[in-house]
Amino acid sequence: MDNFTFHNPTRIHFGRGQIAKLDRELPADARVLLLAGGGSIKQNGVYEQVKKALGSRAVFEFFGVEANPDYDTLMKAVEICRKEKVDWILPVGGGSVLDGAKFVAAAVPFTGSDPWEILTTQGTQLKTALPIGAVLTLPATGSEANGASVISRRAIKEKLAFISPVVFPKFSVLDPETTFSLPPRQIANGIGDAFCHVMEQYLTYPAAAAVQDRYAESILRVLIEVAPKTLANPTDYDARANLVWAATCALNGVISVGVPQDWATHTIGHELTALHGIDHARTLAIVLPNLMHVQRGTKRAKLLQYAERVWDIREGTEDARIDAAIAKTRAFYENIGIKTKLSDYDVPASVASEVAKRLASRGVTAIGERGDLTPAKVEEILRLAA
Amino acid sequence: MDNFTFHNPTRIHFGRGQIAKLDRELPADARVLLLAGGGSIKQNGVYEQVKKALGSRAVFEFFGVEANPDYDTLMKAVEICRKEKVDWILPVGGGSVLDGAKFVAAAVPFTGSDPWEILTTQGTQLKTALPIGAVLTLPATGSEANGASVISRRAIKEKLAFISPVVFPKFSVLDPETTFSLPPRQIANGIGDAFCHVMEQYLTYPAAAAVQDRYAESILRVLIEVAPKTLANPTDYDARANLVWAATCALNGVISVGVPQDWATHTIGHELTALHGIDHARTLAIVLPNLMHVQRGTKRAKLLQYAERVWDIREGTEDARIDAAIAKTRAFYENIGIKTKLSDYDVPASVASEVAKRLASRGVTAIGERGDLTPAKVEEILRLAA
Repeated sequence: MDNFTFHNPTRIHFGRGQIAKLDRELPADARVLLLAGGGSIKQNGVYEQVKKALGSRAVFEFFGVEANPDYDTLMKAVEICRKEKVDWILPVGGGSVLDGAKFVAAAVPFTGSDPWEILTTQGTQLKTALPIGAVLTLPATGSEANGASVISRRAIKEKLAFISPVVFPKFSVLDPETTFSLPPRQIANGIGDAFCHVMEQYLTYPAAAAVQDRYAESILRVLIEVAPKTLANPTDYDARANLVWAATCALNGVISVGVPQDWATHTIGHELTALHGIDHARTLAIVLPNLMHVQRGTKRAKLLQYAERVWDIREGTEDARIDAAIAKTRAFYENIGIKTKLSDYDVPASVASEVAKRLASRGVTAIGERGDLTPAKVEEILRLAA
Repeated sequence: MDNFTFHNPTRIHFGRGQIAKLDRELPADARVLLLAGGGSIKQNGVYEQVKKALGSRAVFEFFGVEANPDYDTLMKAVEICRKEKVDWILPVGGGSVLDGAKFVAAAVPFTGSDPWEILTTQGTQLKTALPIGAVLTLPATGSEANGASVISRRAIKEKLAFISPVVFPKFSVLDPETTFSLPPRQIANGIGDAFCHVMEQYLTYPAAAAVQDRYAESILRVLIEVAPKTLANPTDYDARANLVWAATCALNGVISVGVPQDWATHTIGHELTALHGIDHARTLAIVLPNLMHVQRGTKRAKLLQYAERVWDIREGTEDARIDAAIAKTRAFYENIGIKTKLSDYDVPASVASEVAKRLASRGVTAIGERGDLTPAKVEEILRLAA
């Protein structure tokens, strides 16, 4: 096991009616920016619960944070915070709203010349941020219990991430009932995203991290079990609660301590979103099975472990078991309604060389847990996805 | 899944050489009480590493915290803290030293008439405590990453627990190498204790908590796998590291969120320690298999799940599978050198009625996750353990 430092200070309030805890968590004199997306929280009762819990606190509302939250949109929220002396950021929504809130919280007290530097320096320089309390309404990204954020800047065609301990939410409210009204497509995307988050931290090489491996396998098995149930019956509380908690556990730092991490599937997937606007989770489904195939040499030991412990595949040669595990992974995505081929999204096969060139042009020589996934291999992966 | 709130703010520094992190964690002007047990840290190099990391900080030393740390011993440490204006408590040791440190940290700023009230009110009134940073040298109790503490007061024959968020360690250092020199008996006790911690939170009734169940099963499997390895070869770093991390995960709050808990094995075990001085972990090994047998009705569903997922027992009638799982549990303890019968410890069978009477005399009518384990059943359990 590698040395590690682990710290996750977010307080989680999980379950029915927990939005009421906002009243206990926020100071009575807090000046709050309520940050939200397109307004669905006004249809499903979440907004009402939040307003009730906030009581007579000074609340400023900013709706309109888009999927892949945009720098220019968020800077308008920063403006409001500075003008109104906001001292708490309250995102109410999914991963995009939460990621946006982290940027806003860091940008308000930022003293450098341009808050975009928070992204270009990947958050490493951040010393402080406004406190964040989150109400999660979409299980997927894990942003409710980590210090990571991905921000887009459409004006200059950039999409960058930052990570900092100062933007961990102080608390997050996870009420599975707030997710009942989500469209199946978004739930499927959330499942597919969480599944891949685990795979990026698990499907690498053995690092003698027995608890972390079994925890990762636990989340994968739960997602496999719960996915058909929660898609078939969105108001089955227990199934949805298990999905919500599994998605948080997938990226709250617990399974990544002391182990190598990959994240190549995400890197390649981001290019497909940038070039063709494919939903993030769907790009992962296109890339992951083929990455597993191309990297079967260096990932062999973990692929065999994954086959056995996650899919109960114990028969056949090593390669047959790996092939079966890859087929199961692809079927998992297809079964939740996420297509896994580029042609399903009307993307031409030529995207393979295009993505490889884009990565190479940015100086990327190799990615993945061993730093052996070259642009040429990226091209091979995407050719197989045609 | 039940509603829950989860918050574990302890920063963990895990791995070789991490004691050096003390220098980064503690303020340069900290006035530190180094709290320790019998002095083994002076033999195994831990004391040297700690002192080096502390540098020129004002350090006051208090050695002599005993197993089952005693109120009167700890009050002497409280005295030193008050006199020397200590502002950080640094336990260096196992669970007893850590539990003791939590009491000292809470007692120093305690403003009530008698710090024993911290125990009699179970910590519920605590508002503040001195900050604690811990160096763990014995994997077992999980005290390094929770807010619980058990304190004895031999003068009045009491042993009480308290729990408070204010005594979570700010940070804990877990270097598996510091445990290499422990005697096998202590390592076995640590394994057996951690195993039972998981069982108390897992072997109850189904609560639709899929991740929590699989996480619990993960820790159990890791303990089963790693126990013979780390006992056979104490300096196998990876095996020991997995034990240390598994023991922390067994009681850091992650597997208990949203689920019922039992703790009857611990309640009964404490009586055996009080009456006959049997090591805590050994009392658990005496009680647990028989409690599983007597409670097989109310625990049936989870017993069957435990049999299948932890021990791969899939054949036979339900009762045959439960019997097999109980036998495996008993064998697990016996195989790590922990005897499971009262007669192995020269304790007469009459202890069964004695413990039942002691519990009843204290007004205990029933314990366990369903509140159905009466003193009469406690007697039955201990009769089976004869």
